[in-house]
Formats: sequence, C-alpha cells, structure tokens
Amino acid sequence: VSWNELEMIAALRRALSGGVPPGETHVGDDAAVLGPPPGKLLLAADALVEGVHFDLSFGGASDAGWKALSVNVSDIAAMGGEATYAVSSVAAPAGSDLEGLFAGLLEASRHYSVTLVGGDLSLAAQLFISVAVIGGTDALPAVRRSGARPGDELWCTGPLGASAAGLALLKRGGDGDGSLAAAYLRPEARPAEGRLAARLGARAMIDVSDGLSSDLDHLATESGVGVILETLPVHPGASEEDALGGGEDYELVFAMGDGTDVCGDFREAGLREPVRIGRVVEDASVRMLGDRPLRPTGWVHGSARGS
Amino acid sequence: VSWNELEMIAALRRALSGGVPPGETHVGDDAAVLGPPPGKLLLAADALVEGVHFDLSFGGASDAGWKALSVNVSDIAAMGGEATYAVSSVAAPAGSDLEGLFAGLLEASRHYSVTLVGGDLSLAAQLFISVAVIGGTDALPAVRRSGARPGDELWCTGPLGASAAGLALLKRGGDGDGSLAAAYLRPEARPAEGRLAARLGARAMIDVSDGLSSDLDHLATESGVGVILETLPVHPGASEEDALGGGEDYELVFAMGDGTDVCGDFREAGLREPVRIGRVVEDASVRMLGDRPLRPTGWVHGSARGS
Repeated sequence: VSWNELEMIAALRRALSGGVPPGETHVGDDAAVLGPPPGKLLLAADALVEGVHFDLSFGGASDAGWKALSVNVSDIAAMGGEATYAVSSVAAPAGSDLEGLFAGLLEASRHYSVTLVGGDLSLAAQLFISVAVIGGTDALPAVRRSGARPGDELWCTGPLGASAAGLALLKRGGDGDGSLAAAYLRPEARPAEGRLAARLGARAMIDVSDGLSSDLDHLATESGVGVILETLPVHPGASEEDALGGGEDYELVFAMGDGTDVCGDFREAGLREPVRIGRVVEDASVRMLGDRPLRPTGWVHGSARGS
Repeated sequence: VSWNELEMIAALRRALSGGVPPGETHVGDDAAVLGPPPGKLLLAADALVEGVHFDLSFGGASDAGWKALSVNVSDIAAMGGEATYAVSSVAAPAGSDLEGLFAGLLEASRHYSVTLVGGDLSLAAQLFISVAVIGGTDALPAVRRSGARPGDELWCTGPLGASAAGLALLKRGGDGDGSLAAAYLRPEARPAEGRLAARLGARAMIDVSDGLSSDLDHLATESGVGVILETLPVHPGASEEDALGGGEDYELVFAMGDGTDVCGDFREAGLREPVRIGRVVEDASVRMLGDRPLRPTGWVHGSARGS
C-alpha cells in the first residue's frame, strides 16, 4: 500500500486551507459543518468496498446495505446531529443481489428515520456502496473533534471490540447468528446518544470507526490535548486488542466538562449509560492507557481489511 | 446484464412511494428536492466507474476527477439550482494517480464554485469515484422533469454528440487534444444556463446525460406529454446517431411556454443562445423526430460503456 487516507486528507486540507468560512468545518471531522445559516447543515459521505469493508461470504448484500447507511448515520451522530436524507451510489457486478442490498439500505433508512432520496447504479467488477447523508443539529452547534479541553472527562457510549471479534469468529467459520457477528455485520449507529451528548454540552466527539486508540488520537490531535484512558469498556467475547484497535464499533466517544451527571441524564432519556473511560490532559503529547503508552493500533484507511 | 438502473429506480420508487412530503421530490429526477423550507435544498449523487464511465488509457485520473464533479453539477443545474458543496468517496487500486484525481476534482470545484468539503478513500480493484453535491434554488422552485405542458417549446443549450464522437475518435487512436476528445474527457456542465432557464420560467428540464432521445423520453414520460423534435443540434464532427443516442453531453434541455424570448435573454446574459429543438404535444404516446418515430437509443444505465 503506497498511500493512506490520512495522508490524502492532510493533502486535501492543505489544498483547501484558507477557504473555510467562520462557523464551518470542511475536511477532517466526521461530517462537514456547513450553512446557511452557518453551522446548521451537516454533510458526510462514506463508502464500503467488497473485500475491504465487507465480505459477502460472511454476510448478505442486505447486511452491506444496512452497514453502508449505518456508518454514515454514525458520522452525523458524532457531530451531535440528526441525519435526515441520504443518497446512494452503487456499483455492482452483474448478477449481484441488488434487491437484498436495497432492502438492507431501506431497512436501515427506516430504523434511523433517514429518507433515501436518490442515487445511481453502475456495473463494476466489485461491489461498491457509497452513501452520502445530510443532517442538522437543531439549535445547537455541531460537536467537532477539536473542542476537548484539559480536565474534561472522556465517555464512551458502549463496550468495544465486538465487531473485530465478530469478524474473527466469522473467519474461523463460527456462527453468524450471535451478537459478535451481528456487531460486525449489522453495526448500530448511536444518533440518540450523540444528540443527547451534544445537548449535555459535549465539547468534542468522534465515532469509534477506526478503533478506540486511533479515534482517541484523532480527537486529541484535533483538540491539541493529551488523553489518558483509565477504563477500557471491552465487549464480552472481545479482547483488549479488539477494543483498542478493532474499530467499526460505532459507539461514540465524547469529552464532557467535569461534573456533568452524564449517566443520570442518559438513564433518564432511556439510553444505556455511557462509561467514563478517562480524562483529557494539557500535555498534547500524552496518549496513555493507565500507565502504559497508548499507540494507535486502529485502522489506517486505505489498507485492506475485512477479508 | 440482468438489470438496469431504470428498473431499479422504478423498484425504489415503488418501495419509497407515499412518503414524499408536498413540495419535495425524491427518487426519479436529476436531483432530490428537499427541505426545510420545502423545495429549497437539492441533493444529488453520481458515481463514475473505471472501464464504464471513463477509461484511463484515453485520459488521465485528473480528467476522471473533473468529470465526476461535472456530472453532479449538471444534475443540480438541470433543476435550475446552484451547487454549493460536494463530498467524494474514492476507491482505488494501490498505485493509482490520486494526486491527479484530486487535482481534477479540485480544478472542477474551483471552476464551478463548488466547495469540496470531505469524503473518504478506500482500496479497491477498480477506480471508483462517487460524488454527492448539495445545492439550492434561491427564491425559485426547482425545475423538475415533470412540468412540461402541451404547447411548450423545447430548447437545448448547445450542440450534441461531441462526447460520443470524441470517445469513438479516442478508440480509433485519434488525437486527444481536439474539441471532440475534450467533450468526452472534460465535459462542461451548464449551471448558469440552468439557473437562467429557471428564472425565465422553464417548466421542465433535464440534462443530456443518457442521450437526447432517451432524456427527452424521460422528460415526456414524467410530464405525461408527447414530444416532437424538429431540429437536431449536431456538434461538428458528430453524427445524428451520436447526437440522439450518445449522451454525456451535459447540455440542458428545457420546456418553456411559447412566446418567451429565450435567445434574447440568454444573449443578454452573455450565454450562448440555445437552440429551439421542438415542441411538446398533448398525446403522451408521441415521440417524433420530424415525421419519423424517435426511439430512445441512449444509454441504459447498468450496461457497460466507455471502454
């Protein structure tokens, strides 16, 4: 592999720098924050490629359709926003199970109350599903990756590692019906959790798509702070390594000012209580897991995976 | 080929039918017309696949990047709208000329004043470029395909067939520097023309992406009217067949109430004068080229082409 997504994003950011109006965020967060009015419109796009992000020998085309919408809803959720509309571009080999694919897309679209309003279809040698979503943030500002401050507490909306453990299980020929396999095949985005975190004043947020160690590193780097992980919420059946580097969990990690009753407010809203996983420190070079260094072991985009 | 895009769109429209709020258009036009406020937000997505929509033995990755944005700007232009922001999802084999690809995307983005605000990048066996754009229509309603009425005149913003003739030329090993090859490699969307047509009261509009005969058929079918072509604007070097069925010209075709000084208004705005190509008739079964039947010979999506 001669390149990766982070390098390309860095190159794009340099190419585009200087042109971002106040209140907007373009390349480099989970979704772009746009206008008018400034900061009120969110736009994200994410594509899944057969053999990289999904494998049709483990799940059906409907799972791939579900996942393609979920990862986009997750990007909007990580800004504290509500996804409203989606479009999809699909390229597929002749004979593909397009009915299943669109059934999965539509099932997810109903599940998340996102309306699929168009798209296009082409022939290709490999199944490719690209989705773009727009959304809004009501009266609140979008929660970027960059707002964490020293002293903030770090929270995670759920246990991690199930997706990576599920993929490993499927590769070993294991049962596709259990909760680990489901976490990989039909991940669940957390839009209600993201909106509540925003309402409670979350200062920075990201979804766990690359792996906690990498996603926390993104958040810390964008915020110019350090992070210390004190608790690792590991999903039953997953390893510490899965939780730190597996990715594709689509739980949300957010930084919140000390003293907010996050658990109480989530419980009151009928949502699972988040786990307080650590804290933000001033020294921007710090990445720690307890007293060990925390190295990003998550997904480098552009590398093959999942097959 | 066991399916095509029109069948899939029809299936999707059936699946989604009943849920479209007043003032909105979802699947089935060049772009979706959304809100809030109703009818003010446009969203479109279109993907290009290597070997189907472009061929890297004829043009560079920068041409593909240019084209990927242009076809999306064209979709918004065909609604009378102005594209504002775009996101791109790219999947590419290792070693691809991503620098060239993004250079072409950014060049087009500057050309059309559309800001590229994000996207993602994956590995794939085949180069795939998906773009989604959002846009607006100012104070005017979006111009759908469905508003043509008997008695309307049909206009086209420019000569047709250059793209198909250019591709044929390139396949014969011809010069890639001429205007025919350029029409194929670097098509030009017509956003200023689309917005002016909307301001002048165009009742229906579509971009010539599949081929005039097919696109006129789409417009007539959506409007429940017949169409008679009286003049075929053929690009120098192209054949009648190229102009009718070639597609990828990205000129706009629109229906306008009789008596509007379309040429005068375009000239005054500094734009090339459109050609009056025919008229709309009440009998919804009519598709005529002069006194011959006009059959859709354009691109059926999902069929291979361009390589």
